[in-house]
Amino acid sequence: MLTNELRQELIDRAAKAYHKAYAPYSHYSVGAAVLTDSGEIIDGANIENAVYPLTVCGERVAIFKAVSEGHLHFPAIAVVTRNGGTPCGSCRQVMAEFGLDTVVLIADINGNLVNTYTVRELLPNSFGDADLKTS
Amino acid sequence: MLTNELRQELIDRAAKAYHKAYAPYSHYSVGAAVLTDSGEIIDGANIENAVYPLTVCGERVAIFKAVSEGHLHFPAIAVVTRNGGTPCGSCRQVMAEFGLDTVVLIADINGNLVNTYTVRELLPNSFGDADLKTS
Amino acid sequence: MLTNELRQELIDRAAKAYHKAYAPYSHYSVGAAVLTDSGEIIDGANIENAVYPLTVCGERVAIFKAVSEGHLHFPAIAVVTRNGGTPCGSCRQVMAEFGLDTVVLIADINGNLVNTYTVRELLPNSFGDADLKTS
Amino acid sequence: MLTNELRQELIDRAAKAYHKAYAPYSHYSVGAAVLTDSGEIIDGANIENAVYPLTVCGERVAIFKAVSEGHLHFPAIAVVTRNGGTPCGSCRQVMAEFGLDTVVLIADINGNLVNTYTVRELLPNSFGDADLKTS
Repeated sequence: MLTNELRQELIDRAAKAYHKAYAPYSHYSVGAAVLTDSGEIIDGANIENAVYPLTVCGERVAIFKAVSEGHLHFPAIAVVTRNGGTPCGSCRQVMAEFGLDTVVLIADINGNLVNTYTVRELLPNSFGDADLKTS
Repeated sequence: MLTNELRQELIDRAAKAYHKAYAPYSHYSVGAAVLTDSGEIIDGANIENAVYPLTVCGERVAIFKAVSEGHLHFPAIAVVTRNGGTPCGSCRQVMAEFGLDTVVLIADINGNLVNTYTVRELLPNSFGDADLKTS
Repeated sequence: MLTNELRQELIDRAAKAYHKAYAPYSHYSVGAAVLTDSGEIIDGANIENAVYPLTVCGERVAIFKAVSEGHLHFPAIAVVTRNGGTPCGSCRQVMAEFGLDTVVLIADINGNLVNTYTVRELLPNSFGDADLKTS
Repeated sequence: MLTNELRQELIDRAAKAYHKAYAPYSHYSVGAAVLTDSGEIIDGANIENAVYPLTVCGERVAIFKAVSEGHLHFPAIAVVTRNGGTPCGSCRQVMAEFGLDTVVLIADINGNLVNTYTVRELLPNSFGDADLKTS
């Protein structure tokens, strides 16, 4: 169950990861922490590149780490930025690959919760693997 | 004004572009046609790559073509797939860069309109350049 | 045949496209022009996004335009930047999808040729669809 | 120092990570393991998406994990596929962001070393942050 305590723990982990960002180009750091269905918390931060298209967002780094360690279901993810920015469309789609019910906690760097969404709310009528399988 | 006639013309152009897709890996073709604020229609199709991350969607090809020809505002875009699939999160974000009011017409390959959205509806509470500028 | 005259025409078209770049984040413009095997020249420029990973390079815009118009083979591509920068690894891979023999002309904004390569030279021992088909 | 023993350990870790790939679309798995300059080994695997452009390669997952944990220099990276495939251009560019001297060990799933390169060899005359800073 996603208790208030667990929500705050996720936000705190994302706020800690925020400081690991490699963002020399945009100077906009993002920290994220994903909760796995086995109760682990795995964090990540954005990693930029002189070739801008090769930049990766903090949300995706956290999810990629978790998936590469065998996790495929995520009850919640926390995202921390200086202004409480929401995930980009690409990150929403990567979240959607692993489920539309994931709770997305948006917080600022002081650890204050700004907004709460589900992936389904952030990416309504999403494209997915069922589309690819139609003929 | 986005008349019914103009909507159908956009869908027809997208349906024609559908057949230009280079999709040897997914075999899922996407055609798109964007309307510029000067009244031009510019189309595109998806272009895949053996390195899947380097694939580009049809919506983005149409928008990239239009922007590279000096257009920055798009009243509408039509998207055609075999099943009336919606744009992915990445394409929604690329649309959002150029305005949230763009009308997105979703159609099937028979030219039937399946759904109509705005970019704002498809990408609620979107991230944008205003976020980058916060301090 | 890729005559000196044709090479210069490609560079000039890329230099012209350079000024169509949408690069409000990096302020680094890229113009490109690709030659199709039917002798057409199709140009493009880089298009950035507040979400940096959704940025697309000028080389890819030119290639995407050409492919979406039915072209799949490119004898040459010219790339123009203020300092004669080379294509990124992603663009090299997109070029490779359509052939390793494409000549890559690197020029500065004054239209001076700085370097000439083939895609094979820029992406040695490249990954490609033959890899995907192995079992 | 990159001893033969350490090289084999990297390859073995990449071969183990190979089995963590999430590759339901291409069915082409990639395992990778990166060595940090403090001697840690961090692994990753490729993670695909129904939206192909949102797929990420195994090499990048390993590097993203390492960077998000504070590492910025990598003496070596091992890559394991069923056929000894080389890294794509995008991964080469992500490697280049953190240094051109990284040794890239290409191996097959039996743990046999197939090829050894440096990033400089795989991405000659690479684009980098020095290009962005020119005026």
